[in-house]
Amino acid sequence: MVSRRGRGRPPGDSDARERIAAAAMHEFGEHGYDGATMRAIAARAEVDPALVHHYFGAKADLFAEVAGFPVRPDREVPAILRERRSDAGERIVRFVLEAFERPDVRKRGVMVLRTAVSGKLTGPLVTGFLSRELLPRIAADLDAPDAELRATLVASQVAGLIIARYIVELPAMKEASMGELVERIGPTIQRYLFD
Amino acid sequence: MVSRRGRGRPPGDSDARERIAAAAMHEFGEHGYDGATMRAIAARAEVDPALVHHYFGAKADLFAEVAGFPVRPDREVPAILRERRSDAGERIVRFVLEAFERPDVRKRGVMVLRTAVSGKLTGPLVTGFLSRELLPRIAADLDAPDAELRATLVASQVAGLIIARYIVELPAMKEASMGELVERIGPTIQRYLFD
Repeated sequence: MVSRRGRGRPPGDSDARERIAAAAMHEFGEHGYDGATMRAIAARAEVDPALVHHYFGAKADLFAEVAGFPVRPDREVPAILRERRSDAGERIVRFVLEAFERPDVRKRGVMVLRTAVSGKLTGPLVTGFLSRELLPRIAADLDAPDAELRATLVASQVAGLIIARYIVELPAMKEASMGELVERIGPTIQRYLFD
Repeated sequence: MVSRRGRGRPPGDSDARERIAAAAMHEFGEHGYDGATMRAIAARAEVDPALVHHYFGAKADLFAEVAGFPVRPDREVPAILRERRSDAGERIVRFVLEAFERPDVRKRGVMVLRTAVSGKLTGPLVTGFLSRELLPRIAADLDAPDAELRATLVASQVAGLIIARYIVELPAMKEASMGELVERIGPTIQRYLFD
């Protein structure tokens, strides 16, 4: 039952998207987030690099898609920082909580975080993405010599929040209202970013 | 090759300790941290409950031993709080960092934390221990109506710190000095506890 589309590989055939995704997983798995290139992914998928960009955008977008990221902190958090600084800490906490209150986001977000912490081979991939796409973008907006440490401290508290409320489900954290958590944790994030 | 000690089961025979540990893992696994009783563990190991206490102390001690806890936050953190409040946040961060700088502690501590986050059946056991033995002891020392939430917020930042520095090894966090991290994160812990 070989379909006509399965034979030959014209550059824009409709299963090219799946081939690119599969090739991306291979390349990311073999070379890590930094080491994988869009060119090598295209070559493995037997398509033109332009088609990879056409379907998936930049490398970060491709990775976020194949890794199952349910939201894009690498876009959202810098956008929050650029909008207004005075209450950015609270708005970052609210962004995380509002996202994770959605069951689909929670399910995939928990999976991604578990992968990062698991010690499995795929763990460093997620870390590589964070180190390359999320933390430097936050740091760039801070314009301070210790910006990377500041961004990483923010990541540590946000990861701890997600784990305590949505993974380990510690009762006091699970039962707290969103407003209460924004009020408690927001100032921490604000201090890590700007104090 | 049945050894003489292997036959019959006098209450204090020298492999009783191992039998108790094995029985404890069974009972904790079946009934959870709260549900497992010292009496049932003794019965499964075919020893007198007094012998369980003799070898392992209280249930928390027995669990900490069979779960491989490398340090006892359920004892150490309350001790830090009782000693002096004015810089307790910094001292808690220092306690965590000094413990995890020791390779043996780090190895087992990472294992315990991974278990808690993993979604495996053993995860809730670790959470049960934290919910019953660590967080209420911290909360009891705080004497505030929202003490449990405060203790849980502390746990969330400490977990995030351990994950960022020792598991995921985000560069800025891994390379920061202990003093720097104490200075940045100590005030967060202090604020969660007392502000």
